[in-house]
Amino acid sequence: MSTKELCIHLTELHAKSLLNDNDTFLFDCDGVLWNFPHIFTGAVELLNYLTEQGKRLFFVTNNSTTTQDDYAKRFNDIGYKAKPEQIICTAWLTAQHLKSINFKGKCYVLGMQSMKDELEREGFQICGGIGPDPVPSDSNAVTVDTLELEKDVDCVISAFDLHISYIKILKAATYLNRPNVLFIATNDDASHPQNDEIVKPGNYNAK
Amino acid sequence: MSTKELCIHLTELHAKSLLNDNDTFLFDCDGVLWNFPHIFTGAVELLNYLTEQGKRLFFVTNNSTTTQDDYAKRFNDIGYKAKPEQIICTAWLTAQHLKSINFKGKCYVLGMQSMKDELEREGFQICGGIGPDPVPSDSNAVTVDTLELEKDVDCVISAFDLHISYIKILKAATYLNRPNVLFIATNDDASHPQNDEIVKPGNYNAK
Repeated sequence: MSTKELCIHLTELHAKSLLNDNDTFLFDCDGVLWNFPHIFTGAVELLNYLTEQGKRLFFVTNNSTTTQDDYAKRFNDIGYKAKPEQIICTAWLTAQHLKSINFKGKCYVLGMQSMKDELEREGFQICGGIGPDPVPSDSNAVTVDTLELEKDVDCVISAFDLHISYIKILKAATYLNRPNVLFIATNDDASHPQNDEIVKPGNYNAK
Repeated sequence: MSTKELCIHLTELHAKSLLNDNDTFLFDCDGVLWNFPHIFTGAVELLNYLTEQGKRLFFVTNNSTTTQDDYAKRFNDIGYKAKPEQIICTAWLTAQHLKSINFKGKCYVLGMQSMKDELEREGFQICGGIGPDPVPSDSNAVTVDTLELEKDVDCVISAFDLHISYIKILKAATYLNRPNVLFIATNDDASHPQNDEIVKPGNYNAK
């Protein structure tokens, strides 16, 4: 069944009943409210209308490249006043999950600065993985002796990472091969929504 | 069943019958003759012995980082005089496959110099993918407008690539999304043989 076939066109009666019967609304963001920087027609107006009607709104996204604060700023920029606590993003959720299991160790994070920010905000220690870690450009092999591996890694987090590299994948796989290392994957999108001919790879956790 | 259980210990009788009944012997290389630079005990002696007995030897490997010439040199260095044509490696095989289907287009190659060398030796055109193609180190997003995409790509080849990057995966996926683009994956090893604690990622084509 196509996405279009799954959609229901709301009549006035449908819309009224939806409003009357619910006090909380959850929205996905990318591909639902916008394909950034393009904002879908009526999206901001709808959010403002629902808020004026006293509804509670939450934004649930598996995008791991932004923090709650980043998202709130984005909403404010496009004309909807969002509070950070309305944003359920995977960087924040990862930190909340580790907190909920009383995690005390170090994390190797394949991910962007956002993931580091949310984890560090909750007091977790990062031991690498953020930013570039390439093989030297003229290399034809990885010299194992020169690899800088951390001794104590207790968790590997796989999030969207623009700077993914052979060395980073090697380190993540090596740490995960040790006993009792926790693995958290933030989402399983094979690719990101894109309007044109370009296929943007997703999060490397695709099934 | 473990690898050890699949092994058969040759008695003198077994060995004699194996020699008498066969005139051609095929060997894998990595993890079979060596975990380079460590050469397995007796490997070179066996190859020389078989050659002295008039047997034909071929070396079949899914390692795509070396050419026939590179492999022949490696064998010569360790004490076995191999000719390039004894080496059935995936870089060479990829070129032979394209030749066999009378391929005339351009190839985007996720791979190392060896793949370029073998393809160009057969006259095929490469349009990118060899060597580093990173996202700028301070980037937080891919700007689609600045992407340099080739117009005419007829084949995407996925081989072992130490310089794998987000941009290279994006380009390969985008080209493959176009109609009638051929996809060749050189092997499906999830990881490479390694003696110590390190897990070396393989060829990204793992099932």
